[in-house]
Amino acid sequence: MTTGNDIKDDWAGDAQNASPDGEFVRDTNYINDRITAEAPAGEPTEQPDGTFHWPVEAGRYRLVAARACPWAHRAVIVRRLMGLEDVISLGLTGPTHDNRSWTFDLDPGEVDPVLEIPRLQGAYLNRFPDYPRGITVPAIVEESSRKVVTNDYPSLVRDMITQWREHHRAGAPDLWPAEHVEEMEELNEWLFTEVNNGVYRCGFAGSQDAYDAAYDRLWAALDKLEERLSTRRYLVGDHITETDIRLFTTLVRHDPVYHGHFKTARNKITEMPNLWGYLRELFQLPGFGDTTDFTEIKQHYYIVHTEINPTRIVPKGPDLSGFATPHGREALGGQPFAEGTTLPGAMPAGEELKNPEPFQA
Amino acid sequence: MTTGNDIKDDWAGDAQNASPDGEFVRDTNYINDRITAEAPAGEPTEQPDGTFHWPVEAGRYRLVAARACPWAHRAVIVRRLMGLEDVISLGLTGPTHDNRSWTFDLDPGEVDPVLEIPRLQGAYLNRFPDYPRGITVPAIVEESSRKVVTNDYPSLVRDMITQWREHHRAGAPDLWPAEHVEEMEELNEWLFTEVNNGVYRCGFAGSQDAYDAAYDRLWAALDKLEERLSTRRYLVGDHITETDIRLFTTLVRHDPVYHGHFKTARNKITEMPNLWGYLRELFQLPGFGDTTDFTEIKQHYYIVHTEINPTRIVPKGPDLSGFATPHGREALGGQPFAEGTTLPGAMPAGEELKNPEPFQA
Repeated sequence: MTTGNDIKDDWAGDAQNASPDGEFVRDTNYINDRITAEAPAGEPTEQPDGTFHWPVEAGRYRLVAARACPWAHRAVIVRRLMGLEDVISLGLTGPTHDNRSWTFDLDPGEVDPVLEIPRLQGAYLNRFPDYPRGITVPAIVEESSRKVVTNDYPSLVRDMITQWREHHRAGAPDLWPAEHVEEMEELNEWLFTEVNNGVYRCGFAGSQDAYDAAYDRLWAALDKLEERLSTRRYLVGDHITETDIRLFTTLVRHDPVYHGHFKTARNKITEMPNLWGYLRELFQLPGFGDTTDFTEIKQHYYIVHTEINPTRIVPKGPDLSGFATPHGREALGGQPFAEGTTLPGAMPAGEELKNPEPFQA
Repeated sequence: MTTGNDIKDDWAGDAQNASPDGEFVRDTNYINDRITAEAPAGEPTEQPDGTFHWPVEAGRYRLVAARACPWAHRAVIVRRLMGLEDVISLGLTGPTHDNRSWTFDLDPGEVDPVLEIPRLQGAYLNRFPDYPRGITVPAIVEESSRKVVTNDYPSLVRDMITQWREHHRAGAPDLWPAEHVEEMEELNEWLFTEVNNGVYRCGFAGSQDAYDAAYDRLWAALDKLEERLSTRRYLVGDHITETDIRLFTTLVRHDPVYHGHFKTARNKITEMPNLWGYLRELFQLPGFGDTTDFTEIKQHYYIVHTEINPTRIVPKGPDLSGFATPHGREALGGQPFAEGTTLPGAMPAGEELKNPEPFQA
């Protein structure tokens, strides 16, 4: 849910996103349609709350993401773990955007080859000609109409897990196991306020006091996670779940970006033994590290947030080679996915990282 | 030699300090007078090159420094190691300054109690009413006339070591040993261009290309030092010299400031085993750690350089507690100072750090 105009919208100096005490407040209104297994084929069905449900249908939808964005990264990981690559296509914007929209500047002619638009904003305006909010990724777009179906990032990820079952690959993991739903929902909410959004609260604080409080709050949460992961291999149960994916996309960006750019630098994740082992294990699995483009991640934050980094210079560091070192998490028992589950296969052609690190080649 | 108006002068966007390719270029012209053992008592003596030599005289001069500034920090360390605290008084400016001058805002009434001026600029103007350059620390000021004698930071440090011998404390170390002068001069020059100024070259680079080159150049130098310190306990010979002090004041600022603020973050110094052990050993000796105020250091850089950090928010991190851990450098043999040398005594009353870390208390 990084917005296309977060140069303005995500900035605490902007009244829309700052509380009176200077604390960063995230805009959380979205296009809340869903794609569901129950929705009848054909046109979307209006719901009592005014939203629409669209039918699961192979080849109908395109996930538009940015490698840079942690909220979009979740959807990219889940699509791959569930084996939906041939069912939901993937459009990737570049790492930066102007004040109107994310743009398809990595594609030939700087136009998305399927949607045939230069900016994601086009798909928002096709749906709502006067769309007044930020142009965010991830978004699911109907290929034929080129209209945005949903940009509600938590529900579009959840629905890939729970609604698209008939299209999951053989051996796909259960990322939302029924026996752990209550614990996951509680943890997900806590992770959002304390960690996923907690790093932004540090970076976009509008005052020293707001920043100081945000820093303490973030590290209280990271210390809790460090403790939790000292005896558990994963956050919930014995296998990887959606909750781990939510933590992963923030953790993997910490040392390269949040540490310096958002001033979260109490420690590097590499200095937190359990978080670092946990992060490395996930990173080394197909779907995680092979969808993480550190160059685009750094370019996004350091180039777009000119209020924090007016020079737009992108750091060359940090040394990331440790991501390829043994994680040692086997000692805690368990395994990434349950018995009978398999790892995703090779990355589909054309979806490889544009900027692999040496250890990702 | 941090200037009083480095908001403007130290910034690569300023023509005075940027080469055509955007590389940071440091202004290196100073008031080049010296205080020498040979100078006759009384008024300073003009030299053939137009500068003046002033006589060594206890109680005549005041060293004006800022805890924040690495160039001034050298003079503060040397004054203490040589036991000149009762001979040359110490005035300390606050960590930040406006676009005219460093200011004495930590003193009662925000006025230096000896010089009775609110800004160091006053002492420069007393000497040269039209002084056209930056107002820099360290500066040596004649107490009676309140005129700056010299702000030439390398020579004023060297002269404390070599010209003030009659006032050195018993057991003061020889920081400029004759048998190593050639090696020290060569290393000092290299340290200046590659490391001391090298971090500024990263932070004030005016283009991505200039930054990328500066980063590579800095880390090539730090890798060389890491290698050098794998077999040598100190940079030159078997004991601490002026050259170590020059490296210390940059190294100790690396993780808290340069790493994020100047984007030097390939690694933290804590990740470089030999540099980290070396830095900790020096830090733990009287004169080094007890003159290092991390709060003022962070405030200076993050508040003054608004072109890099427009929010002026000062990071709470990093965790610095490792500075108090065993350094293990005894394994390399040698000892900090030669036989017959003693460590400095307690910090003079009134010169204690304003913001000691818990491990400095």
